[in-house]
Amino acid sequence: MLPVAWSDVQAARRRIDGLVHRTPVLTSQTINASASAHVYFKCENVQRTGSFKYRGATNAVRSLHEPTAVYTHSSGNHAQALALAAWVRGVPAHIVMPDNASPAKIAATKAYGAHVVFCAPTNENRWQTADRIGRETGATLVHPHDDPAVIAGQGTAVCELIEDTATPEVILVPVGGGGLLSGTLIAVRELLPNAIVIGCEPAGADDASRSLATGQRITDFVPRTIADGLRTPLGESTFTIIRHLVDDIVVVPEEEILPAMRMIWERLKIVIEPSAAVAVAPLLSGAVRNRGSTVGVVLSGGNVAFPGLQPTGGEEGVNSPSVA
Amino acid sequence: MLPVAWSDVQAARRRIDGLVHRTPVLTSQTINASASAHVYFKCENVQRTGSFKYRGATNAVRSLHEPTAVYTHSSGNHAQALALAAWVRGVPAHIVMPDNASPAKIAATKAYGAHVVFCAPTNENRWQTADRIGRETGATLVHPHDDPAVIAGQGTAVCELIEDTATPEVILVPVGGGGLLSGTLIAVRELLPNAIVIGCEPAGADDASRSLATGQRITDFVPRTIADGLRTPLGESTFTIIRHLVDDIVVVPEEEILPAMRMIWERLKIVIEPSAAVAVAPLLSGAVRNRGSTVGVVLSGGNVAFPGLQPTGGEEGVNSPSVA
Repeated sequence: MLPVAWSDVQAARRRIDGLVHRTPVLTSQTINASASAHVYFKCENVQRTGSFKYRGATNAVRSLHEPTAVYTHSSGNHAQALALAAWVRGVPAHIVMPDNASPAKIAATKAYGAHVVFCAPTNENRWQTADRIGRETGATLVHPHDDPAVIAGQGTAVCELIEDTATPEVILVPVGGGGLLSGTLIAVRELLPNAIVIGCEPAGADDASRSLATGQRITDFVPRTIADGLRTPLGESTFTIIRHLVDDIVVVPEEEILPAMRMIWERLKIVIEPSAAVAVAPLLSGAVRNRGSTVGVVLSGGNVAFPGLQPTGGEEGVNSPSVA
Repeated sequence: MLPVAWSDVQAARRRIDGLVHRTPVLTSQTINASASAHVYFKCENVQRTGSFKYRGATNAVRSLHEPTAVYTHSSGNHAQALALAAWVRGVPAHIVMPDNASPAKIAATKAYGAHVVFCAPTNENRWQTADRIGRETGATLVHPHDDPAVIAGQGTAVCELIEDTATPEVILVPVGGGGLLSGTLIAVRELLPNAIVIGCEPAGADDASRSLATGQRITDFVPRTIADGLRTPLGESTFTIIRHLVDDIVVVPEEEILPAMRMIWERLKIVIEPSAAVAVAPLLSGAVRNRGSTVGVVLSGGNVAFPGLQPTGGEEGVNSPSVA
């Protein structure tokens, strides 16, 4: 039996209804032409806290019976998501972050009212610190992806995508820890049993692909990818779900990530982070061509630092702007 | 009598219906808190060709009786807008562009099927070349802003904003050549006679403010602004309309433009160009505080080059991405 059931996703939908944004679905004729398909983009980059992580965090926090506090470790989107989800419920949150996390992400996490605890930036140190915080505070752990309530919450995004789209034949989602892909699989296997669900991961952190190939979950690797949200290995629960239900994992070459981000920028005029672009890249490379004529893509997040602007060329002696 | 009437805007709405996107209106609780107002952003950055200019160009092209061809000069958004509007109607377009215009804009204009003619990048040269093209081809001029049909078309954006918004008390739009501001004024004076309409222009091209102060249209100045869409002087028609109907012009310091662009990036996760940010900046600086508690802003365009990505910091030896 899998660790998450369709009924868990249904329960998550009811539980987080009104607490999370129903994000828009966007399309582009130019992208459709490039991809030779009708492509529907589910914009979780405009979800609260800027990523789908807010769904899982909210479902987890709302599932707890009279929690005194919650904690986790995360340097990225789960940190902000859990911080806000806890704040909205009025529960203290302790977030362990590596001491070299980006100042912007630390500031955002604190701004959502969380108590941030720093640790040395190694995996071992993060868990040791998190365990200590758990013992000292009596808080409940909300794991970034290896938690059934988190996985069920992440599965709600694709339910909306399916409701708002001409039935997709292919669904693309990025895979890092595997929470989004697992939740998506649980939902799609119920709603559209014949749809092809493809996890997309960057070549610089291709542990999901290799884990599936060997049947052994690979956790000991050094990620080398620009997709900062996809650097974590699969968890035990997510590996189990993905192994049983996924159709395919596509490994995206690192050099295809920025062009995908650029296409979304130019055609949809929205900001997505590199991790989200990993699920867009296969549309451009042709890696999923002929898998189906209607494709749904979950744009997982939009948390990327604002650039400076540099002048490039121009007219009449005055420079034209270009973000650079 | 003003050169454009409310009936012209009404006619434009009917004429361009189904040809232009009805763009979304977005809001952000965080921005509302910063601005101490309810702010509604009309997203013309996702209009076809990436700016409101497509409205005016489409209305102008559709207003012509059996045109053989159209022409204009523009290095920016009007070039792409007229190119596509003409292509959709099946009419050839000749676009005079300065030979130092950005390759991306030249490519986009050509991609929409236009015949691009290059000229030396001085105002005199552009008009001479455009006049020659007009004589040689018998094409009809569609001026970037000093054309009643163009102005009427631009006025349709604010009509949608008003329909989709709790009645705005204050409306902010950027002002360069003045087409958007003029069209907005004609529409608002009919629909919401008491609303305060404020034109926003960058300090490095503050000719509208100075022209209104002196009552004389200033055309002889060297713009020094990052807002590349706002470098042109007011036209005769737009000066007339603005002088009679505008409530105020706010001059935005250059250093406030990028922070405004950044706020929209971070909070709405959408891409706007610096010219659009000029109408956002007064919300942050407090320049329009106490003018009204409900504010509509027309985000005029989103055509800005995609940045590169540079690593900044990170964890466990792997860099986190930051657009830079």
